[in-house]
Amino acid sequence: MTKKVFKGSVMLNPVPVVLITSKNKENKTNVFTVAWTGTACTKPPIISVAIRPERLSYEYIKESMEFVVNLPSKDLVRQVDFCGVRSGRQMDKLKELGLTLDDASIVNAPIIKQCPVALECKVTNIIPLGSHDLFLAEVVAIQVEDRLMDASGKIHLENADLISYSHGEYFPLDNKALGKFGFSVMKKIKKGKPVK
Amino acid sequence: MTKKVFKGSVMLNPVPVVLITSKNKENKTNVFTVAWTGTACTKPPIISVAIRPERLSYEYIKESMEFVVNLPSKDLVRQVDFCGVRSGRQMDKLKELGLTLDDASIVNAPIIKQCPVALECKVTNIIPLGSHDLFLAEVVAIQVEDRLMDASGKIHLENADLISYSHGEYFPLDNKALGKFGFSVMKKIKKGKPVK
Repeated sequence: MTKKVFKGSVMLNPVPVVLITSKNKENKTNVFTVAWTGTACTKPPIISVAIRPERLSYEYIKESMEFVVNLPSKDLVRQVDFCGVRSGRQMDKLKELGLTLDDASIVNAPIIKQCPVALECKVTNIIPLGSHDLFLAEVVAIQVEDRLMDASGKIHLENADLISYSHGEYFPLDNKALGKFGFSVMKKIKKGKPVK
Repeated sequence: MTKKVFKGSVMLNPVPVVLITSKNKENKTNVFTVAWTGTACTKPPIISVAIRPERLSYEYIKESMEFVVNLPSKDLVRQVDFCGVRSGRQMDKLKELGLTLDDASIVNAPIIKQCPVALECKVTNIIPLGSHDLFLAEVVAIQVEDRLMDASGKIHLENADLISYSHGEYFPLDNKALGKFGFSVMKKIKKGKPVK
């Protein structure tokens, strides 16, 4: 395979795409879309969120040092796109889109009812990098929709219809997984006996 | 929708899953799999990569302060999984899996030929967070496979068959995008005329 060389760019793909809710000190709520986010640490659970200082949510989050990451399902893709291109300075995006809110369990920022999963986050560190500041935040609680859990309490996130962002487009995940973590080194079991 | 509250955990999904190559000061190469990565800044282009200090690649990258992020296609999912569960301390994973290398254009770490996209990275900052250290690295060059570009030079990453990691499973993206960035506010064009 031959490759062409380009100058550096943000070519990491596919990435998550999430709706982030926050409240300012006057208790106003805003929502915006972020694709520049990632897991930063497992213990404690920390995520990174890159935010442009021009964003209204940047102000809200810097004031409150809290936010909620709402994982949207594919039926919300139009709302996800809209919250990425329109500003809370011009309109109340939540009202405009009919997104409804619920209280979080720990942070003051609200969760979006229509999203199947919410991560309640407290900012621990803000690192200015250039066009974006990188916010590191501990995930202090998560909320998962009842219908995604089976009788034993196991979470079936594969039924949440989450979406990915890749090179300027939103994609659903394929229904069928390619494999579970560790599948490449597991012994195959056939009729109860390991296959040599 | 009713939700159940859990304690905080790394519930951000779906995330990228990439193969990272690095060289130590004795010119030994290692490869390992990372799902805890994200875009951290656009200008300059910076990504974050969370690495456990116990990892062999942690040593290599701390020594060289360089690495390459190789984006794998779905036909490489077995190799991706293997490089996440096996250590370079026990074996030469690249040789074991038949992955072949090419020189990068700027950094000393090599690129994996079989991966359609490579991001050449130089570490700018290392932030200890707990179980993982967060490496921030500038993307100094990217390499994209020729077959992903059309005659005008546009990159069609949707043909790269990239994969996502979600809640312990690897998933291909669906073939069909849900929409392009900005689609929710674009005027619909029908037979050359905007639809009101």
